[in-house]
Amino acid sequence: MAKILSFVGKSNSGKTTIIENVVPILKDQGLNVLVIKHAKRFEIDREGKDSYRIFRSGADVVITSKDKTAFISRFSDDLDFICEVFGRFYDLVITEGFSRACKDRVVVLNCPEELSNYNCGRIIAVVADFNVDGYISIRKNDYEGIAKVIIDWFYS
Amino acid sequence: MAKILSFVGKSNSGKTTIIENVVPILKDQGLNVLVIKHAKRFEIDREGKDSYRIFRSGADVVITSKDKTAFISRFSDDLDFICEVFGRFYDLVITEGFSRACKDRVVVLNCPEELSNYNCGRIIAVVADFNVDGYISIRKNDYEGIAKVIIDWFYS
Repeated sequence: MAKILSFVGKSNSGKTTIIENVVPILKDQGLNVLVIKHAKRFEIDREGKDSYRIFRSGADVVITSKDKTAFISRFSDDLDFICEVFGRFYDLVITEGFSRACKDRVVVLNCPEELSNYNCGRIIAVVADFNVDGYISIRKNDYEGIAKVIIDWFYS
Repeated sequence: MAKILSFVGKSNSGKTTIIENVVPILKDQGLNVLVIKHAKRFEIDREGKDSYRIFRSGADVVITSKDKTAFISRFSDDLDFICEVFGRFYDLVITEGFSRACKDRVVVLNCPEELSNYNCGRIIAVVADFNVDGYISIRKNDYEGIAKVIIDWFYS
């Protein structure tokens, strides 16, 4: 079973950019990573495509090729269920958002006052352009530093 | 575990249209259906979107909302593996293509000579604009008739 770590913070805090830059470092360290992202609404497929037509007809859909497989389902956003179904193929699951799931977390801040929104779950680091007393504080563009904290946490 | 049925036939035989029209009838009969479609290459996501950026960074991705969840992975097109991972949530898995997997099948034909390409696996019906001796033959636009054969097979 994968270990689960959440990246939490406001929507404009830079979580996606940080994750995008930290994942390659984690992969270089041998970790197979799944990122789970929450969306209010999303359209992954395109109108008119076969897979879109079939999904709309009422079936869930898998599209598969030699090196990529997509699964479009009517599953809801139950994080524990999603981790159970998909997480078993990975070493590490990173969730973007899901702050109320109270998983161990990296908190990405624009200002110190935001921290109080994210106090369920263990904070393994604060990522911000300032230091926060009592927490490991890392700058937003220090991807190596963020990856190191994650790896230390992963093997702890 | 789901029962698995393949729709096989040339790429212009109308498989997708048939599946698209038969699925709602199967759902009305209480069957929860997953369709697995093979593609030489596909792009499910759009450049610039967060999920696309994260996938490109090297992680597999889940995007999830209240009523829909997509999973984009580096899994290959191993049908048995895909059925094992995803099939357990469904009553019926319909594969489009995968003729060489030798599953029970509906063969969609443009002309009688094509039938010989699809003789591995048990043929439960031929769908074509002509009859084929020795097989249940159904017209391409007879979606109710095709659904009935599938339901009889499913409960047999």
